[in-house]
Amino acid sequence: MTRRRQLLKAGALGATASFTTGAYAQTQPSVRWRMAALYPRSLDTCYGSTEQMCKRVAELTNGKFTITLHPPGDLVPPLQVLDAVSAGTVEAGQVSGSFYFGKNPALMFESGLPFGMNVRQQNAWLYEAGGLKEVQKVFAGFNCHSVPCGNFGTQMGGWFRKEINSLKDLSGLKMRIGGFGGQVVSRLGVVPQMIPGGDLYAALEKGVIDAAEFVGPYDDEKLGLAKVTQYYYSPGWWEGGSAQVSAVANQKAWAALPKDYQAAFEVAAFESNMRMLAIYDSKNPDAIQRILSSGVKLRWFPKEILDVAYDTTISMLEEISSKDADFKAIYQHYRNFLNKQSSWYRVADHFLDSYSLSRRGR
Amino acid sequence: MTRRRQLLKAGALGATASFTTGAYAQTQPSVRWRMAALYPRSLDTCYGSTEQMCKRVAELTNGKFTITLHPPGDLVPPLQVLDAVSAGTVEAGQVSGSFYFGKNPALMFESGLPFGMNVRQQNAWLYEAGGLKEVQKVFAGFNCHSVPCGNFGTQMGGWFRKEINSLKDLSGLKMRIGGFGGQVVSRLGVVPQMIPGGDLYAALEKGVIDAAEFVGPYDDEKLGLAKVTQYYYSPGWWEGGSAQVSAVANQKAWAALPKDYQAAFEVAAFESNMRMLAIYDSKNPDAIQRILSSGVKLRWFPKEILDVAYDTTISMLEEISSKDADFKAIYQHYRNFLNKQSSWYRVADHFLDSYSLSRRGR
Repeated sequence: MTRRRQLLKAGALGATASFTTGAYAQTQPSVRWRMAALYPRSLDTCYGSTEQMCKRVAELTNGKFTITLHPPGDLVPPLQVLDAVSAGTVEAGQVSGSFYFGKNPALMFESGLPFGMNVRQQNAWLYEAGGLKEVQKVFAGFNCHSVPCGNFGTQMGGWFRKEINSLKDLSGLKMRIGGFGGQVVSRLGVVPQMIPGGDLYAALEKGVIDAAEFVGPYDDEKLGLAKVTQYYYSPGWWEGGSAQVSAVANQKAWAALPKDYQAAFEVAAFESNMRMLAIYDSKNPDAIQRILSSGVKLRWFPKEILDVAYDTTISMLEEISSKDADFKAIYQHYRNFLNKQSSWYRVADHFLDSYSLSRRGR
Repeated sequence: MTRRRQLLKAGALGATASFTTGAYAQTQPSVRWRMAALYPRSLDTCYGSTEQMCKRVAELTNGKFTITLHPPGDLVPPLQVLDAVSAGTVEAGQVSGSFYFGKNPALMFESGLPFGMNVRQQNAWLYEAGGLKEVQKVFAGFNCHSVPCGNFGTQMGGWFRKEINSLKDLSGLKMRIGGFGGQVVSRLGVVPQMIPGGDLYAALEKGVIDAAEFVGPYDDEKLGLAKVTQYYYSPGWWEGGSAQVSAVANQKAWAALPKDYQAAFEVAAFESNMRMLAIYDSKNPDAIQRILSSGVKLRWFPKEILDVAYDTTISMLEEISSKDADFKAIYQHYRNFLNKQSSWYRVADHFLDSYSLSRRGR
């Protein structure tokens, strides 16, 4: 009998499967975690995909490991999520490094750099080139274990009351923009403002601000800003091609989990990471069409502005590197990978994307 | 006491977690599956990522649900994997629709269409726009349940002994290329040949064939074809921007699984889908540099050829649609989504990718 035939004989369907009926794991430990969300329920894509992640964890553990997601303000306000998980006040949190950039600039390697990696490059860097270990070291400084759990892709550049034709049009422009991106644009003459999403309509209508960036078409549409602005700009270069979200767990709570619960958390985060992007990619096309049909005009930032923004970004990243050896080490790791990755990306993926896009219907 | 303080008090770290020691699930059913691989072990990325998927399933079920991956030829030859799973001879298989295209052309919606979706578009279509349901209906016709478990991204156009400057250079060209792509290029004058990967070196060296497509830099490099050809062409437009791989399970075996084992299989496939692409994205950049430093010249197919190939692809897809109502329904679903998706992709992601690539080091 050949090896193949032996294997086939041994393995006829079901022959090696032994089922017991119904009874599942009465002896699994019950673990109940709370998770503090960064994004509100109204952003149903980024809130909802993390909620789905929690459901998946429960499903994988037959309901024994449950994580309840709480909206911002329910347990802690959004800007305190990282602190709360760090202190162990809550077991887990949904975070984006850009919100906590002031605590440690290296957190931006989690959330995305201006003109940084696109989603594929970010995932390759994180999962297969040692990037995640670097990011996890940064979060370990906050007593947290982090795993990527979502991505927005490239965001929009935001809503502008006036057209931006040159660098001088940015001078003195009051724009809602935060994080490292806010610091970069301030060197371009913009006056960054921090205003909650829900207040943007009134602020733009009354001219308290001249411009506001938020997310992308699907989320932006909900704010109704097309009624109080004339121009919708692209791209949101400040978080680059990959605006990442992570799930963090308090290190002590993480270490106390059984291995298979840790595996359930990690693998559910992979699914959530893919799904959040897929949801945005499936919803943004219709949203941008609805927005543009309401009369607002689509514009791209002129090359003059992108060039200065790019150069300013690189100088600022080098400035931080010169003062912060930990940041420098991660930045060099990131930049080396990105340069090499980009050489290859031009060869096949970007070339074919460009050609195919040139042939498809508008 | 405010709701927030009540919640915090109730949930101080660990307060709600009740652990029992060590004892895990003695009563979970033991299930052992075999899985027939499509790709050989030598393609460590696509073989290895499916092997990792199997390990993750075991980890998630505390070793109770094990899937053993067998290399092609061990249980069944690669071209018989779908038949074997369909018949229940083996419980699961690793497949790519392009290999079984002759059985039903709609299988190409799983593996990728010429000039088709890129990876993000494919994932958005599959996971969030109903695409996966359509693909699963096609596999259900073979008694299989399918889940995506890997992606190559855009592949290379392959190895050519002579430079291709115009359409007439393709006339009579003997090229190793299979599947639907082979049918398209045959209308461009190419004479498609089916030759196993391991025989390509000799066939090119002796001039039995003039050209051969295989995978991308990391896998291609192993065949050593740079020694017997002058030109390495891009892109491999025949599987588009997303060359997908799926894990299929025999429907009866699938239906017999406990729900949490089904969940473990599905979620491990999400991880594998992301990881396989991330591995290629992390390995291809070095591989293409090594290949080019060996003296072979990188070329892109000229626009004249791409234009005719694109038009021919569209006509052939319409020809199949006119004869096959099931194919037509999926094709329209796919095409509508792709056109809409492309309109949005041009706005932010592709624009920022193009700009950033123009600024990065070569």
